[in-house]
This record gives sequence, structure tokens and C-alpha cells, in this order.
Amino acid sequence: MEIKTYLNEQRLAVEDALERYMLAAEVENGLFSTHIEAMRYSLFAGGKRIRPILCLAAGEAVGTRPSLDTDLLPIACALECIHTYSLIHDDLPAMDNDDLRRGKPTSHKLYGEAGAILAGDGLLTWAFDLLSNSEKSKLLPEKRLAIIHLIARAAGSLGMVGGQLLDISHENKEFPFEILRAIHRNKTGALITASILAGGIAAGADQVQQEALCRYGEQVGLAFQIVDDLLNATSTTAQLGKAAGSDASRGKATYPAFFGIEATRQKAGAAVEEAECALNIFDAKADPLRAIARYILTRSH
Amino acid sequence: MEIKTYLNEQRLAVEDALERYMLAAEVENGLFSTHIEAMRYSLFAGGKRIRPILCLAAGEAVGTRPSLDTDLLPIACALECIHTYSLIHDDLPAMDNDDLRRGKPTSHKLYGEAGAILAGDGLLTWAFDLLSNSEKSKLLPEKRLAIIHLIARAAGSLGMVGGQLLDISHENKEFPFEILRAIHRNKTGALITASILAGGIAAGADQVQQEALCRYGEQVGLAFQIVDDLLNATSTTAQLGKAAGSDASRGKATYPAFFGIEATRQKAGAAVEEAECALNIFDAKADPLRAIARYILTRSH
Repeated sequence: MEIKTYLNEQRLAVEDALERYMLAAEVENGLFSTHIEAMRYSLFAGGKRIRPILCLAAGEAVGTRPSLDTDLLPIACALECIHTYSLIHDDLPAMDNDDLRRGKPTSHKLYGEAGAILAGDGLLTWAFDLLSNSEKSKLLPEKRLAIIHLIARAAGSLGMVGGQLLDISHENKEFPFEILRAIHRNKTGALITASILAGGIAAGADQVQQEALCRYGEQVGLAFQIVDDLLNATSTTAQLGKAAGSDASRGKATYPAFFGIEATRQKAGAAVEEAECALNIFDAKADPLRAIARYILTRSH
Repeated sequence: MEIKTYLNEQRLAVEDALERYMLAAEVENGLFSTHIEAMRYSLFAGGKRIRPILCLAAGEAVGTRPSLDTDLLPIACALECIHTYSLIHDDLPAMDNDDLRRGKPTSHKLYGEAGAILAGDGLLTWAFDLLSNSEKSKLLPEKRLAIIHLIARAAGSLGMVGGQLLDISHENKEFPFEILRAIHRNKTGALITASILAGGIAAGADQVQQEALCRYGEQVGLAFQIVDDLLNATSTTAQLGKAAGSDASRGKATYPAFFGIEATRQKAGAAVEEAECALNIFDAKADPLRAIARYILTRSH
């Protein structure tokens, strides 16, 4: 299957599940309609759904497809809720102060700062509601607890949240490359790796498979972030749907700032090669994971 | 045992457990030291620890004490993390814009708005890390999942987060009493009830006991909030450790604003009586829950 077709189909499956899970009925009547509308606005504002798709593809690599979907979709949707909450909070005036995200006004532009902070808080909490909802999953409780713990660890202070603070606290400062690696590894890498590992664990991955998925995740996360840096440095705002060149104007250190555009491209390529290598123990069922890794190099937004 | 002695002992047990769970080692060395310091600052800034204590007391009412502590303490601490995150976010300039909390500068006054938002995000996520950490609990996975779901539902968009948005979106507006009830029920009542129910479920409460604990929780939560309104209207800032009279100056509707001071006091008393009634099916092991309900009426901060 062509990777673009695959990504598109999986994206639609994720969005269909998000639609079912995300309190659509509560918008109509009820006290919290504005709040739920705010959460849904950011959740359905576009987005590549790369974390949920990686989760599904990792499940596919390990197990058999059809029986998995119902178990994996709540996890995949929870991951997208967490990612979306992190974007809403990152865009706040006190953080990156961004007006545009995916070509649309950011949450606080529409719902005010308080509304945006609470939309983020609500999405983060909803992720754990979804992950722990026994009506939504037939996975063994032990497995589900392990997945919740894995995701909480990756999303929290020793992962994504810590990485975000590291990022903003190093703006306009000189620092060694190791700090940039730590920012990337925590701010984006941790949740991407957790997405892949969660899919694998749900599908019954053994220890060796889990380690391989971890290595794949780390390299794919790295490639993804390097390409993000490249796109920010070389695209227009219209292409990106968010402020282009903002890394430089904000004094954020990036791969291009450390190595220049050409060497950065090579590093992205090397990370993708290593990601593919990590999948050697898997058969053709891991082809989507392989194709996603290569696709990251060619994405344009 | 005198209730003040009981509350003090339980508070110390909770704080001792929080100290063990809250990443003390990571402050010393490590990338995230400022962030973890910010979380610990708010977590250890005082506080009555009423939610964790209610959780422990509900466990005590249902089960036997010593074996429970190790199972209940991670849950109790997670509840306090969630409560503390909600205070940090509520105090932000975009929300209540408070400079003081428990007599100390609020998080954003010390760590900046971005630092405070992330400290809140980190504490919320850490709560679910703690709840899902299998090294910290011997409770059956099914029970732990049920508790995680219960707490996520109470803390999220259909509970505390939704209640907070309802609260700030009704400032300086006229609205019927039903809205005030909904604000209280969601903003504070939901997490208080969940704290009690979580303790009960962990200790093995059956359906009848769970329903009784729910009724108790609703009334105790109501009494707690009514007394909070009263204290805000009648105390000084020095007594409260946070801005007194702020409800009135912010145009927040409160019980005293609807009913006057005297009738409000009576309503608090009635709620406490109903809370005690709900506990009729329990024996003397529920005495701490009974005493806590009565204590709420007499608290001064």
C-alpha cells in the first residue's frame, strides 16, 4: 500500500474514533458546552495524527490487525488528546505566544487564556479517563495499567512537560548540543516512543520486540524533530500553518543552528536508517512502521 | 481520639508519603530541577490535606487499617497532587490572579506564568503516574483501573475542570442558585467525593457501602464549600492565608450572597447532619469520617 494512502486511512480511523469518544453529545446541552467545544476545536483543527498512527502501526507490527483496533483506538485517541493539550499550553502567551496553529487561530485567541488553559487541562485528564475506561477496552487490566504508566511517565515532568520547561528556559541562551538533544528527547521524543511502545504492549510484544520498538521510537522521534527544525527554518508560514522562522526569532537553538541545513538533513536521514534497522526482527507486518520512518524525511508540514 | 490529633497524624503520614513519592532525588541533580522544585513548592506549601485524609478515613471505615496504608497512600498522594495542580492553575493571572496562597506567594509569582502552568501540568500527570505505578501498590489491577477512572472523571471536564470554567465564566453575572450548586458540585464536590469513594473501593467497599460513601462525600463536599464561602466573606487575609473578601470583589456568587451569613451557616450544619446520616450503615470504624464532617463546620482557614 502506498504510504500516503495508509496514513490517510489511519488518520480517518483515528478521527472517527476521536469523534465518538470526545463528548460530542455534551456540547449540545449541558453546562460545559463552551469548554468541550474548546477541547474539540483544537482536537479537530487538523493535524497529522502521527502519534496515534504510530501506535496503531506498532500494534500491527506485533499482532494481528482486526482484533486489535478496538483495543488500540482508545489508546491512540488518548495519545492525540495529550499531544493536543501540549500544543494548546505551548501556544499560550506565557509560553511560545503563538497566534496560529495548523493555519487556524490558537485556542487562547478564540477562547481566552483561561479557556485555553482549561481546555488543555481537560484534554490531558480526558486522556487518562479514556485509558482507564473499562467500557472502551477489552485489554487485560495489567496491560492497561502498564500502558497508562508508560504514557504518564512520558507525558510528565520527566518527559514532555520537563522538556517544554527546558526548552523555554533556554531561549536566547548559549548551550551545548547535549541540552538540545535533551530538549528534543523529552519534549517530543518521549511521547512518540511511548506511543509506539504502547501499541506494541497492547498487541502483546515480548521483551525483545519492546526493546526494538523503543529503539525505533527514539530514532523516529529524533528524525521527526530534526525535520521540524528544518521546516521551521526553510518554509513559509503559509506552508507550515504556524509561524515560520519562529525558532530563530525566538532565539531557540535548533539542529540547523548547530550544524547548518545540509548536515542537518544528513542527520535526519541517518536517524531514519537507524529506525529501520531497529525493525529488522519484525516481518512484513512492520512495513507501515518502516514506511512512516521514510515518510518523515519527505513531509512538508 | 480527638479529631485534631487524628487530622494532624494523618496529615503527617500524607506529607511523609508525598516526600517519598515526589522526586526529591531529581531536584539535586538533573535537568528538571527547577521544574520539580516548583511542583514541590506548591505541594509542600501547607494545606489541610483534606482530600487524602478523607481517602484514608474512608478506607478505614470499610476495611482494616494497617494493611491498607501502603495501598491507600499512593492514591491519597495522587489526590493531593491533583488538588495542588488545580490551585496553581486557578491562581494564574488569566484565572483568579491571586498573589497569595496559604500565606505564601503563588506559584507564578515565584516561577513565572510558564513555570506555574507547567508545574500544574506536571502535578496532574504525576498523579496518574503514581496511580498506575505497580511498584507502589499491591491492589488488584481491576480495582486500580476503576480508581483511576473515577478520579480522572471527577478531575476532568465533566467535573473539576468544567466547574472551574463555569465559575470564572459566571463572574460578575447574575445567575440562578442552580448554577452556584453546579459550580460547587463540580469544582470542589466531585474530587472530594472521588477521594472518599476511591478510599472505599481500595478497601473493598461493596455496592451499598459505595453508595453511602458517595452520599457522605456529596454532603461533606457541600459543607466544605459553604464554609469556604463563609470564611472568604468573614475572615481577614491574615487568617485565611489568601485574599479575603475576594469572592465579593470579584463578583463571584456565593452562599452568603444568596442567603446571607446566618442562613448559610444553617445550611452548612444541615449538610453535615446529612453526611453523618449517610454513614449509619457503618460501625465505629467510620468515626473519623463522622468527626471530619463535624470538624468542617468549625474550621477557621
